[in-house]
Amino acid sequence: MSDYRIRGARVDDCEEILRLIQELAEFEKMLKECHMTVETLRKDGFGSNPLFRCLVVQSLNPDGSESSGLIGYCIFYYIYSTWEGKCIYMEDLYVTPTSRHKGIGHATLKKLSQICVEEGCKRLQWAVLDWNSIAINFYNKSGAINLSEKEGWLCYRFDEDGLKAFAKN
Amino acid sequence: MSDYRIRGARVDDCEEILRLIQELAEFEKMLKECHMTVETLRKDGFGSNPLFRCLVVQSLNPDGSESSGLIGYCIFYYIYSTWEGKCIYMEDLYVTPTSRHKGIGHATLKKLSQICVEEGCKRLQWAVLDWNSIAINFYNKSGAINLSEKEGWLCYRFDEDGLKAFAKN
Repeated sequence: MSDYRIRGARVDDCEEILRLIQELAEFEKMLKECHMTVETLRKDGFGSNPLFRCLVVQSLNPDGSESSGLIGYCIFYYIYSTWEGKCIYMEDLYVTPTSRHKGIGHATLKKLSQICVEEGCKRLQWAVLDWNSIAINFYNKSGAINLSEKEGWLCYRFDEDGLKAFAKN
Repeated sequence: MSDYRIRGARVDDCEEILRLIQELAEFEKMLKECHMTVETLRKDGFGSNPLFRCLVVQSLNPDGSESSGLIGYCIFYYIYSTWEGKCIYMEDLYVTPTSRHKGIGHATLKKLSQICVEEGCKRLQWAVLDWNSIAINFYNKSGAINLSEKEGWLCYRFDEDGLKAFAKN
């Protein structure tokens, strides 16, 4: 029997989710760019028109009860393909380092894949940093397609300053 | 006075939007991968819970009335950054070849940037094919950041077969 449980996030998980978001941002070497707060997560994810959905991973005590604190999370939302219709984008998939090598990332990605199939989504998409070879190996083994390599897609962005400047030009 | 108008799409634009989606797919050399239908666009974009929003570009007759047919479109929707909160993703921005070099793409991207600022979005994101040098030059001049180059992001995807296989494994 596994010693963890994957379940839908509740509003009272937001403090723990933010702690893990910050852990991931630090791993990605961009912690100073993370401006998220618990209040924003609560408002945006658990109000009347949620902007994202979230799976969380809770570790279990030997008696099967949930121990406090989360060991992983996965944030996702609908996107729209003009070729395939409704799809899902996985914004973050993260398992805390001390809980790795137990198949938790695999099980969480599988759970999200099942949600995609159940909800009629034809694609699940995400992005990964090119130096994150452990994640890349995991995704390549999972049967995912590296679209940047296969089709040549580049990611572009206006940041806040760029947006404001372009909106006024 | 300009001879075109950018406005929000209406449900009765869907036939024309689909024609332009197919034109863009053909330009991107992937027309056979486009499975969109007028019915799906109508249902997904103009029902009670729209999965996307759309700007369209209409050409104007000399008397200022709208001529039939669209000359461009831009499909977008909210995404969610765990660092910045609510953002917008631009799925497609397209102007038909005979209407280029008039600043229509620029004006449409500007309109979308204004929507982002008005709605409190900190980022506008999109993807571009690495061989589409005209689009890349346009985006680079606009002040956008090439995230694949700057930070090393790669785009990944499970397609329908990959999803079904992974959901069952």
